[in-house]
Amino acid sequence: MSQTIKRIGVLTGGGDCPGLNAVIRAVTKTAIFDHGWEVMGIRDGYLGLIEDRVSTLNANNVSGILTTGGTILGTSNKANPEKYATGIDAEGNTIWSDVTDTCLATIERHGLDAIVAIGGDGTMSGAQPFIRAGVNVIGVPKTIDNDIVGTDLSFGFQTAADIATESLDRIHTTAESHQRVMVVEVMGRNAGWIALHSGVASGSDVILIPEIPYDLEKVAAYTEHRRSIGRDYTVVCISEGAAPKGGQQAVQRLDPTSPDPVKLGGIARQLAHNLQALTGQESRATVLGHVQRGGSPTPADRVLATRFGHEAATILEEGKRNRMVAYVGGDVTDIDITVPAHKQRTIPADNHLLQAARAVGTCFGDG
Amino acid sequence: MSQTIKRIGVLTGGGDCPGLNAVIRAVTKTAIFDHGWEVMGIRDGYLGLIEDRVSTLNANNVSGILTTGGTILGTSNKANPEKYATGIDAEGNTIWSDVTDTCLATIERHGLDAIVAIGGDGTMSGAQPFIRAGVNVIGVPKTIDNDIVGTDLSFGFQTAADIATESLDRIHTTAESHQRVMVVEVMGRNAGWIALHSGVASGSDVILIPEIPYDLEKVAAYTEHRRSIGRDYTVVCISEGAAPKGGQQAVQRLDPTSPDPVKLGGIARQLAHNLQALTGQESRATVLGHVQRGGSPTPADRVLATRFGHEAATILEEGKRNRMVAYVGGDVTDIDITVPAHKQRTIPADNHLLQAARAVGTCFGDG
Amino acid sequence: MSQTIKRIGVLTGGGDCPGLNAVIRAVTKTAIFDHGWEVMGIRDGYLGLIEDRVSTLNANNVSGILTTGGTILGTSNKANPEKYATGIDAEGNTIWSDVTDTCLATIERHGLDAIVAIGGDGTMSGAQPFIRAGVNVIGVPKTIDNDIVGTDLSFGFQTAADIATESLDRIHTTAESHQRVMVVEVMGRNAGWIALHSGVASGSDVILIPEIPYDLEKVAAYTEHRRSIGRDYTVVCISEGAAPKGGQQAVQRLDPTSPDPVKLGGIARQLAHNLQALTGQESRATVLGHVQRGGSPTPADRVLATRFGHEAATILEEGKRNRMVAYVGGDVTDIDITVPAHKQRTIPADNHLLQAARAVGTCFGDG
Amino acid sequence: MSQTIKRIGVLTGGGDCPGLNAVIRAVTKTAIFDHGWEVMGIRDGYLGLIEDRVSTLNANNVSGILTTGGTILGTSNKANPEKYATGIDAEGNTIWSDVTDTCLATIERHGLDAIVAIGGDGTMSGAQPFIRAGVNVIGVPKTIDNDIVGTDLSFGFQTAADIATESLDRIHTTAESHQRVMVVEVMGRNAGWIALHSGVASGSDVILIPEIPYDLEKVAAYTEHRRSIGRDYTVVCISEGAAPKGGQQAVQRLDPTSPDPVKLGGIARQLAHNLQALTGQESRATVLGHVQRGGSPTPADRVLATRFGHEAATILEEGKRNRMVAYVGGDVTDIDITVPAHKQRTIPADNHLLQAARAVGTCFGDG
Repeated sequence: MSQTIKRIGVLTGGGDCPGLNAVIRAVTKTAIFDHGWEVMGIRDGYLGLIEDRVSTLNANNVSGILTTGGTILGTSNKANPEKYATGIDAEGNTIWSDVTDTCLATIERHGLDAIVAIGGDGTMSGAQPFIRAGVNVIGVPKTIDNDIVGTDLSFGFQTAADIATESLDRIHTTAESHQRVMVVEVMGRNAGWIALHSGVASGSDVILIPEIPYDLEKVAAYTEHRRSIGRDYTVVCISEGAAPKGGQQAVQRLDPTSPDPVKLGGIARQLAHNLQALTGQESRATVLGHVQRGGSPTPADRVLATRFGHEAATILEEGKRNRMVAYVGGDVTDIDITVPAHKQRTIPADNHLLQAARAVGTCFGDG
Repeated sequence: MSQTIKRIGVLTGGGDCPGLNAVIRAVTKTAIFDHGWEVMGIRDGYLGLIEDRVSTLNANNVSGILTTGGTILGTSNKANPEKYATGIDAEGNTIWSDVTDTCLATIERHGLDAIVAIGGDGTMSGAQPFIRAGVNVIGVPKTIDNDIVGTDLSFGFQTAADIATESLDRIHTTAESHQRVMVVEVMGRNAGWIALHSGVASGSDVILIPEIPYDLEKVAAYTEHRRSIGRDYTVVCISEGAAPKGGQQAVQRLDPTSPDPVKLGGIARQLAHNLQALTGQESRATVLGHVQRGGSPTPADRVLATRFGHEAATILEEGKRNRMVAYVGGDVTDIDITVPAHKQRTIPADNHLLQAARAVGTCFGDG
Repeated sequence: MSQTIKRIGVLTGGGDCPGLNAVIRAVTKTAIFDHGWEVMGIRDGYLGLIEDRVSTLNANNVSGILTTGGTILGTSNKANPEKYATGIDAEGNTIWSDVTDTCLATIERHGLDAIVAIGGDGTMSGAQPFIRAGVNVIGVPKTIDNDIVGTDLSFGFQTAADIATESLDRIHTTAESHQRVMVVEVMGRNAGWIALHSGVASGSDVILIPEIPYDLEKVAAYTEHRRSIGRDYTVVCISEGAAPKGGQQAVQRLDPTSPDPVKLGGIARQLAHNLQALTGQESRATVLGHVQRGGSPTPADRVLATRFGHEAATILEEGKRNRMVAYVGGDVTDIDITVPAHKQRTIPADNHLLQAARAVGTCFGDG
Repeated sequence: MSQTIKRIGVLTGGGDCPGLNAVIRAVTKTAIFDHGWEVMGIRDGYLGLIEDRVSTLNANNVSGILTTGGTILGTSNKANPEKYATGIDAEGNTIWSDVTDTCLATIERHGLDAIVAIGGDGTMSGAQPFIRAGVNVIGVPKTIDNDIVGTDLSFGFQTAADIATESLDRIHTTAESHQRVMVVEVMGRNAGWIALHSGVASGSDVILIPEIPYDLEKVAAYTEHRRSIGRDYTVVCISEGAAPKGGQQAVQRLDPTSPDPVKLGGIARQLAHNLQALTGQESRATVLGHVQRGGSPTPADRVLATRFGHEAATILEEGKRNRMVAYVGGDVTDIDITVPAHKQRTIPADNHLLQAARAVGTCFGDG
């Protein structure tokens, strides 16, 4: 099987993530140096297949990109080949088309014997029509949130957790100097991995994650307990996807005279607002946002990305088809590319780090 | 004059700022080692004088604090001795009292021959009643925003500008990978120093500051010009105090069907919203917030804070009264403590860095 | 078994390592909060048992230490209880004594039901006499070099690799600007983990490790090959324990007229000297040294150290005896404490990262 | 005068320094955008004039270099046009030639109306033959050590001081954990600016600089004084150019049985050796080396470099000739380019920071 490979394509899809360039570099160098293949870069995710934006990658144009953030190939988190906006009809509605055949023609035109698709579960799912048409797609999992099913770890996550930790460290001193509650919102829509890791790493007093709906009154009681033992400040690390028990309505009820917290924009601002309403302690919110997903990857992420990129080329050489590179039990391996589709890897209740965090006194709002 | 000094008090007022502890350490060590004085720490700004929270500072308890953020003395940005909330009347209104005499009694009780007040223009103004009563107050200027009149530079500013720059660097790669407009809001309510320095240091394409009301259509035109020359992304660095020409109403008018931008919470989100409305290019906003004012000071700020703290003790020894330490023309000196009251130091139109930024192609929205 | 525990002792032994304080904190908090035990801190490794320097640890005195480097307990890498210098005899020779009984008396005096010993293989071995006397010792592996047998990973390693990578990144630009060979010596006396990880993370062109004796002429040939393809600089990352094939004599022979390279002090300086002699290209050496083992641990090391500390207390509660906490296959677990004694965990030839590094073109001097 | 300028050349000379690229970018953009000139990049300092390696710089090829270390133009610290090695004679001696005319021919050939030379005092001196021949040379001062006469500050210095401070911070924890004396050697052959700034910023206990010959016994006495008050560790920050009073011989005398300290390689290792000999306290040395001069410039250095580059083009436009851009009294200005030749700017005894350092208890070995 593998002996037929002469040329492969590489693309990056979904949101920006530190380490994308390191994967591109490792795939390209392994393919060229180890296997003697040619490598083509496809621009802006699947969009590059739709619009035929494909050009050569060689050792020179992947030189120097190991340490850089972003992706030299560009990315897009909109292009689904089976449902692509191709125009607007007479009534002003978007016309959605299946452009799979256009993509397959591009793959054919450039003589690509396989595609390495670096992306999240959307990118893995998006590869299905090509796989069904006989294209060999090797996935490389990419997720800031570390929530792709089938891999214990993905590049970018550690960088995001590091940035969040550094911010939490900074906010710690302000909380202490002003005797405030400081609420810091980190990424994690469906899974609380960034909040758990950065919260533990920064010694946050409270960590709130999507997996554990929190009881606002318990969080308030915890800040008051801290004050009663002479710790007159509290740092709260909250995932963007965390939610109070019983939903937003319960939150609003606690302070009916103040502005509608739903309009305050974001779970962190709502929480700070309500904690201040409940406890009288000055409370402020910060939303870290995009800084978590840009910039140079940490050394550990550069290493993991290099291993993933190398592995993608290696398993292609071994003749494997439609697999996703994965990190399982401390080793780099590969799994069926369909495994992560439409699922999220969340934090189980018996997670070791979660237990360690509880043991050192962290409040998860469910006390 | 100076020979009468035997004991001084030190306090920190206003918002958190990296370098406060370095000043406290330098004042304390210089006072003890060089002059043989005793030093008392006053907790939580003027609140410590009102509530008599005063305790000894010695070489041991300022050891190890040079590099730490926050302030070991605590701070408060509410306590104005001339208008202090002392209770609530029968109708539920706050009772405001002048507690200057309470503070003077605390100063007397602890035998403080002078007060070193580290803070912003509010803290300098707040010292006036004590000065009128004959207390010698030496001010040390503290401002993240670098907007205190009378000093070219204050500690904390460079740290804030560094943190902002690092965030802008990270966001640069995301902007480029996604071909987006990324708007980053940095501190600076009245003056654009942080935006100007971090914007230039990060190579931001657009810098918007309070001193130059921006024309939204010019910013939009600039992003489109960039796209026309193959730069399909734009990074905008905006001060929290920047404002469009003609005020908010002009902004809303541009996109009447979308949500009220005033409610979007913050100038950065409004700008991103309106740029997307005008240009069709995907635009996102990030608000850096409190991370800019916490954590370990940069080496340059530790050095400046040490010089300021040393100078405060030195001019006391020289017999000076009611002066503020300042950095003028490259030297540490001192000015009348009343100089900064109720004013802000803003960026003049002929500022050298502003001109350099324009020369390298930066858009200030006034093109 | 576990129900008999009422009080435990904690000590840190061997060289400084980022994360020691995080382990101390997690052991102490888990012991107090989860199990209701008392915790005693033993100063300066086994020296604290010999000289009875033992004092209480509680939640307050481990507060704020998570992010700090060093160890609040002090450390020593000299005290072996079975061979301890207790004086000097008439002829000026050191008198070595077995002070195990002194230590056991200290343990008894303070009522310690178990000892948590955080250290390297020396500390694990040093615990043997106590274990034989019936003391329950739980080890927590600590090694910058990541070379303790029985655990895939220890805290401190990632911090050291990060610092090394940051330095290599910096030196990269100088190598390029000056068209030089830059040799950077990193830690790793017996194992090349730091060199392999930081070398890959920084994109070093050559990585030399103790596990692979290098051929000087092959390294020289590689730098010349790079020049021939327009890459007129080379970054070499070398472990302190790396050695040329055939040993030092072969090295000297290559440049008989120049100073004796053995006297140049360190493998990096020798290598730079010899590469310049062989190729004529300007070559410089830098030895990173102690900066790799001090300062604040990275977020990942804080997390791992917290997990290790928590696990140590947890397995004590479960009644386990004489185990070492370990990280195996992606999970925190425990192994017999005698496993790591007198061995080093080195990089096997089929290591995945080693293979990935080769695939992206890295030279290991054995080409 | 200025109206005759149509095309300028830019070169970088001397050792690597963070901010070189930022200057190149600002010169180039100001020249093109503000003045409509063409800009040519000259490779590897004056070597590019000798060997005619000159090519166009435009807005595209200076894009993205603001934040990068090194220099895209390459550099050389060997090429002196008046004494250039052009061959080897029959007896094996280097033939030195004056290649000024070759350089002038290159300048003529490319139609360069002025040269912007970014470099140290060697580069400024090296421009003299061209100036005498009528070429207009504008210098931009570059020095890690901050020792160029005529400018209070140069880009690169703050980055070097930051890197040194970060390393000193790390080593602090190791010194404390091991109760050691740690000696850290930083750059500064003739002037102690890096040692003074990083020493103060890190709270080093001892700072030794070329300007103040140190008394070894006083340094030893200071470490023993610290131990007597319970500070059983000492961090020493020493410039590479610092020297003991009376020179090396006095040093060796103190420990005649141990290895010749001159052969230990470097002032830091000698000092650690001798302190241990004198006090019996374990003492270690670290030499920071090249890491101080590579990598991304700090935000403050990017700003200063941008201002310097902008100013170079601006004063050319104003018709100035043979000036060096400088930072004096807090402003960017310009001075005669011959001012810095063959001199070093050292720390005067009444320097404010030096006095502040003494006041907070720092030992300079001259107590």
